[in-house]
Amino acid sequence: MADQKLPTRAEDFSEWYNQIVLRAELADYAPVRGCMIVRPYGWALWENIQQALDRRFKATGHVNAAFPLLIPRSFIEKEQSHVAGFSPELAVVTIGGGEKLEEPLVIRPTSETIIGYAYAKWIQSYRDLPVLINQWNSVVRWELRTKLFLRTLEFFWQEGHTAHATFDEAEAETRQMLEIYADFAINEAAVPVIAGRKSASERFAGADQTYSIEAMMGDGKALQAGTSHNLGQNFAKAFNIRYLDRDGVLQFCWTTSWGLSTRFVGAIIMVHGDDQGLILPPRLAPTQVVIVPIYKTDEEKTQVFDAARKMRDALIAAGVRVRTDEREGTSPGFKFNDWEMRGVPLRIEIGPKDLAKGSVVLARRDKPGKEGKSFQPQQGLPAAVSTILEDIQAALLTRARNFRDANTKEPKNYEEFKAAVETGFAWAFWCGSPDCEAKIKEETKATVRCIPLAQTESSGTCILCGQRSTEKGIFGRAY
Amino acid sequence: MADQKLPTRAEDFSEWYNQIVLRAELADYAPVRGCMIVRPYGWALWENIQQALDRRFKATGHVNAAFPLLIPRSFIEKEQSHVAGFSPELAVVTIGGGEKLEEPLVIRPTSETIIGYAYAKWIQSYRDLPVLINQWNSVVRWELRTKLFLRTLEFFWQEGHTAHATFDEAEAETRQMLEIYADFAINEAAVPVIAGRKSASERFAGADQTYSIEAMMGDGKALQAGTSHNLGQNFAKAFNIRYLDRDGVLQFCWTTSWGLSTRFVGAIIMVHGDDQGLILPPRLAPTQVVIVPIYKTDEEKTQVFDAARKMRDALIAAGVRVRTDEREGTSPGFKFNDWEMRGVPLRIEIGPKDLAKGSVVLARRDKPGKEGKSFQPQQGLPAAVSTILEDIQAALLTRARNFRDANTKEPKNYEEFKAAVETGFAWAFWCGSPDCEAKIKEETKATVRCIPLAQTESSGTCILCGQRSTEKGIFGRAY
Repeated sequence: MADQKLPTRAEDFSEWYNQIVLRAELADYAPVRGCMIVRPYGWALWENIQQALDRRFKATGHVNAAFPLLIPRSFIEKEQSHVAGFSPELAVVTIGGGEKLEEPLVIRPTSETIIGYAYAKWIQSYRDLPVLINQWNSVVRWELRTKLFLRTLEFFWQEGHTAHATFDEAEAETRQMLEIYADFAINEAAVPVIAGRKSASERFAGADQTYSIEAMMGDGKALQAGTSHNLGQNFAKAFNIRYLDRDGVLQFCWTTSWGLSTRFVGAIIMVHGDDQGLILPPRLAPTQVVIVPIYKTDEEKTQVFDAARKMRDALIAAGVRVRTDEREGTSPGFKFNDWEMRGVPLRIEIGPKDLAKGSVVLARRDKPGKEGKSFQPQQGLPAAVSTILEDIQAALLTRARNFRDANTKEPKNYEEFKAAVETGFAWAFWCGSPDCEAKIKEETKATVRCIPLAQTESSGTCILCGQRSTEKGIFGRAY
Repeated sequence: MADQKLPTRAEDFSEWYNQIVLRAELADYAPVRGCMIVRPYGWALWENIQQALDRRFKATGHVNAAFPLLIPRSFIEKEQSHVAGFSPELAVVTIGGGEKLEEPLVIRPTSETIIGYAYAKWIQSYRDLPVLINQWNSVVRWELRTKLFLRTLEFFWQEGHTAHATFDEAEAETRQMLEIYADFAINEAAVPVIAGRKSASERFAGADQTYSIEAMMGDGKALQAGTSHNLGQNFAKAFNIRYLDRDGVLQFCWTTSWGLSTRFVGAIIMVHGDDQGLILPPRLAPTQVVIVPIYKTDEEKTQVFDAARKMRDALIAAGVRVRTDEREGTSPGFKFNDWEMRGVPLRIEIGPKDLAKGSVVLARRDKPGKEGKSFQPQQGLPAAVSTILEDIQAALLTRARNFRDANTKEPKNYEEFKAAVETGFAWAFWCGSPDCEAKIKEETKATVRCIPLAQTESSGTCILCGQRSTEKGIFGRAY
């Protein structure tokens, strides 16, 4: 496979994606159809995503816990929309310890039900509220068409579940978590996202309101990259989650849930990658800097290795995630290509000439060729490297934002709309009716990704039916 | 339940344990028999355990990854001892997406098989070795008699899986991980453990050699608290994990696996807890210090809260995990008991008199009553607190070690042996025969917990049969 040429994104975006995932050793196929092995490089990226999110969750008062992966099948049936949405996707355990189970168990497709059961036990009084719990785990949904990271039978994610005394508090929590996702996407992953409300047809099964962040991939298609749900009192009523209020009256709680998954790794690949491979945003990259020693003789090797390791240690001390590539029997050129394919943001080349001059060559991953190369004195290297990494981070965000904006049109009519969603997003008024939504989907394969929270105009006419409309939606074809 | 009296350890150790787990809100029962919900306080403890271990794993070159939880049933059958050991404990998925599966899938009881499959794909040459991967996840084993943290259908753990070019390297890895577990147990959890080799009958299903760390609980029983396995070439042969050596010859790899689970939380509870509740070692405690404000009037409350929060912020800045208990409507006495039950290592009491004197009262959890109380100037408090926390950490280890040593006997004959294992450990020569091992177990309910790596004498006679023996074992009744 390594000998095969990587297709360009223009040639075959989907195959380019698959090959990047495999070649960069982010993930591999599992023996069970549709399951995924997340390899160490991919998992290190996910761990950095986890830390960036977990920090934000804890700063806003959330705590982590762990609920079981096995759920009685009857639990799924307690909330009407939930069972309709998830029943077709369940993995069912019917045998345990060699015996047929009296009641089948399902592997959690999501944990609202089992957490509802627990909250009903734990919550008695308004003093117990709010309950703000998150968990990092994996869930199983029997998907038919799968793709590494984007849609797999088992996927890794976090799911937050909160309970509140009032609708307003639940709504504020739902929106707060949406903002946290958007902040994470933009400021850690350099993925510009649009935060908005989902249409009724795209709501989570059991939610009163679903919000999402939506990103544009390198092929102009949309990826839903995180969701936050206001569950109203639906699960509270299904699981009897109640509390005594200050007046001693028993009330149902208001609950929320919100999740972001390993799908986000797919977003990073498809937003930033180029025809040479992956490009990782420095704040999340497992390796931010790779040092490639260049030498011919043994003597040169000793000197160059020695300098490279000192440089590495100085960078580590400055908080940079760095490694030296000391592989034998592979040329510097091979190493350059290899690390470019793996998306390491910055490369340091050091050879005997550099040693003599007291400098090194820096090569930025985001700017191929000469444009991204610079000489840097070895003196003061850590500070210079940190500055360049920040600059790469900012440049990736700007580039992704420019790409999205260039591929987002404000069509004046339905013909323009149809042309727009061929290659990107259309930002258009929509009357809100499921009929128009369905017809647009049928005719253009585009769906309303979300109704952005930030609206610029207060009224217009529906792009399809022409009726008076109060909100614009972002439309696009989606992963 | 909160009104019920906590039984003393002497009255009913098992019930004391159960109630501590529930009352301290470490965990709760799940709706599925034998499963466990790890509540936020218990999970925060586990997160600290994870960090302490993960740091050690990464410092020794290991990386994390994630393998799927669903394994084809046929995989389990590829390694002969493995299938014999795990078949009776499997949870089997027979339905996916509404349809009966052609091949049933099992939820991983452990991941040697699926990782063996992956390593066979990934490893080609000696250049690819060693492979040093760990994963944090949960596994399912259909246990019949369950107890929160100690034995549950689903439990949380880490499982390390490595592949090497030679037996010696695999054995060195197996021993290194055992040492890491022992170092963690002793220096982070203040749990003195004995590191040793398991007898053949207690080996992991598929291992050539199993090592473990064994700890003595507060009732004198043993708990296996972590295991490390040298798997020889068993899994390499079952899954065809081979590499081309430097001479171009195809060789089977040598593999290892090692794991430590949420069972360790049970060890911490049973080693350190007392009749008032939990006692957590400061290095792992989610909350190391709780500040309880004492006041009567509103004016006092304002002043005391203000001082308490400043103190909290100063302690946070010094790296101490601290919280103030600002609950309304509960007395200081209630709060003292509550935090004692939850095992917070150090309490700070601050009231108007303390404010006037510029001091606070410190109360150590490990020394009840006056013995553990001291006055401390508010000036320089963070440094004093850090010192006391270190002192508590050391005192807990000393106390646990003294308890274990006092309850470990070196019996001269079988009668003394039988008496010793009634209340603790017996440290005795054993000929190594499975017959003696089985007879001892039948007659005394004690098993050889491990054959300690540190042996003090080179020969003696078997405690049961009197035959010449070269090694002493640690015997005890086990959880």
